[in-house]
Amino acid sequence: MNKQRIDRITENMKKAGLEQIIVSSTASLYYLTGYWVEPHERMIALYLDTSSRAILFGNEIFGLNSSPDLPLICHRDSDNPVKDLAEAVRPGELGIDKFWYSKFLIGLMKLRNDIVPVQGSGPVDLARQMKDSDEIKLMRNNSRINDQVMGVIIDMLQEDVAENYLASEVNKHFLQKGADCEGAQLVCFGANGADPHHNSDSTVLKAGDSVIFDIFTPINRYWCDMTRTVFYKTVTEEQRQVYELVKLANETAISRIKPGVLISEIDKTAREIITQGGYGEYFTHRLGHGIGLECHEPPDVSLASDIPLEVGMIFSVEPGIYLPGKFGVRIEDLVLVTEEGCEVLNQYPKELQVVG
Amino acid sequence: MNKQRIDRITENMKKAGLEQIIVSSTASLYYLTGYWVEPHERMIALYLDTSSRAILFGNEIFGLNSSPDLPLICHRDSDNPVKDLAEAVRPGELGIDKFWYSKFLIGLMKLRNDIVPVQGSGPVDLARQMKDSDEIKLMRNNSRINDQVMGVIIDMLQEDVAENYLASEVNKHFLQKGADCEGAQLVCFGANGADPHHNSDSTVLKAGDSVIFDIFTPINRYWCDMTRTVFYKTVTEEQRQVYELVKLANETAISRIKPGVLISEIDKTAREIITQGGYGEYFTHRLGHGIGLECHEPPDVSLASDIPLEVGMIFSVEPGIYLPGKFGVRIEDLVLVTEEGCEVLNQYPKELQVVG
Repeated sequence: MNKQRIDRITENMKKAGLEQIIVSSTASLYYLTGYWVEPHERMIALYLDTSSRAILFGNEIFGLNSSPDLPLICHRDSDNPVKDLAEAVRPGELGIDKFWYSKFLIGLMKLRNDIVPVQGSGPVDLARQMKDSDEIKLMRNNSRINDQVMGVIIDMLQEDVAENYLASEVNKHFLQKGADCEGAQLVCFGANGADPHHNSDSTVLKAGDSVIFDIFTPINRYWCDMTRTVFYKTVTEEQRQVYELVKLANETAISRIKPGVLISEIDKTAREIITQGGYGEYFTHRLGHGIGLECHEPPDVSLASDIPLEVGMIFSVEPGIYLPGKFGVRIEDLVLVTEEGCEVLNQYPKELQVVG
Repeated sequence: MNKQRIDRITENMKKAGLEQIIVSSTASLYYLTGYWVEPHERMIALYLDTSSRAILFGNEIFGLNSSPDLPLICHRDSDNPVKDLAEAVRPGELGIDKFWYSKFLIGLMKLRNDIVPVQGSGPVDLARQMKDSDEIKLMRNNSRINDQVMGVIIDMLQEDVAENYLASEVNKHFLQKGADCEGAQLVCFGANGADPHHNSDSTVLKAGDSVIFDIFTPINRYWCDMTRTVFYKTVTEEQRQVYELVKLANETAISRIKPGVLISEIDKTAREIITQGGYGEYFTHRLGHGIGLECHEPPDVSLASDIPLEVGMIFSVEPGIYLPGKFGVRIEDLVLVTEEGCEVLNQYPKELQVVG
């Protein structure tokens, strides 16, 4: 158990008026206990109350251990997984992890009709969104690796290479540098790049294509995530104009980041630049997302996010313009909020590149 | 909407006394609607009632369409995602998808204190566990691909090759044959194989190692999954004995499969053979799992599964023996229950192989 982190969460629980919570999601449990468990259909739950009582409930298959500061109660596949938990919780409000499967909550409510389930992820999310020094060190290092892989993969662009071949090469290079696993890297040529959710497929590269590389992976559990857009062999005036507009949006938004500024203002800054450039309707997603043990985690970086920036937050700044049937451009960096402003974790250059 | 499947589910709902359900998990929604949506933190929900009223609720970012047989109600990131759904549900019991995130259920309960959430995945699970002819055709074909990739990868065994290199080669060959994505292939050398959940790492191959290949991937959304164990360069008497025992357990269990037999009996058959061979305590997991749109789905194939086999079920039969600090052996096939017994979908041979 990480005592310092538990204390922060207990503090957050008190502020939120929550006396007891259940933490179940993989990343949050790892953050607090050091156990990385992907329970799939099975149950895991960490019970916490404001007196810092902590009990871990899990399937015996997870290979967990009991310890003085974190007693463990195991169940088997043939047991009702929430039975022991139902005996531990107190009557009244019980904060529930947002990602806990409904089957467990319904099972718990059936055994304990004196509990009132309420949204319970806030205290942990608030702690996790301010990275501590160990986390910052890891994430800085991982973005350095991302810079390197970006360089390698951009150098591999050649006529007729397929998106999914390059995606698998990205994974290979990440793995060689210590990535925890492979992932669905986004490599988008030409018109495919106009769909921000296009999955890399067998499309091959042709002269005149824009190329979006949105590459991300966890290394030692912490994610890196960066996007660069380059042009293959030639670039049209429209492509250049769109590129420079997205780059200006990215850089201006980053320049406004400092503690106390509302997150929504950062999104608004980027959005206004793109709107003034005439492409507002083609910037179809939020500016970014918090990142850490999950690739997407709080804080939300959107117009709806009316919370102030705080020192230690790490999130993406990734404006984009998507012209259906034509091409797309996205430029994404991770930034760390500092006392003075922010530190940009990615260093791969953003100047317009025509390669090949 | 797949009318035939919806009708089966409506039938199952009536049998279970459920008048309305919410379906939210990716595979179940695909099964019914043909939409493959991975909503991550966002909400998607298909409302169904026994009059076959169906309404789909989803975030606008998912790119769904409204149709006469499936009206769509969209929300945006800045909306309360369950608001529209709360207006559509009727008072009383509401079956909830087992994998729906608690944050949505709690949000719904807050808006509608006249609903009683109950476990609601049964009707869809029951339909999905009996594969129809389209599904069988896909899964038969995918297991044929799995046979081919197993052959290729076993031929790649050589001194000092690393587990995670071979795992990435498995992914590469699956992708070349049409796999939907890469996955965490299990390649386990020597003592690593004694941990049934060992993740492929940088361990290199040495003479005398057992080698477990547990390889699986979705192709056109349907999973294949097969395990073979071979020995590199030499095999000890103990390794040979353990291997033959696992093979006997696999083959005997398969020989007992036919409609009407309890699933628990199949697990028991394999377990008794391993126990009589003196290794009962080292067969530490259930015999297998249903498979289809998910790698693990109903039916559960364990001692606790007291339901009869039915024509159309597809599941794995994967006995194993794990000797801590020494080695492991697992042999896994997918089987399809037929009128006469079963069809084994994997054809890669199971005779003991010493390679290299």
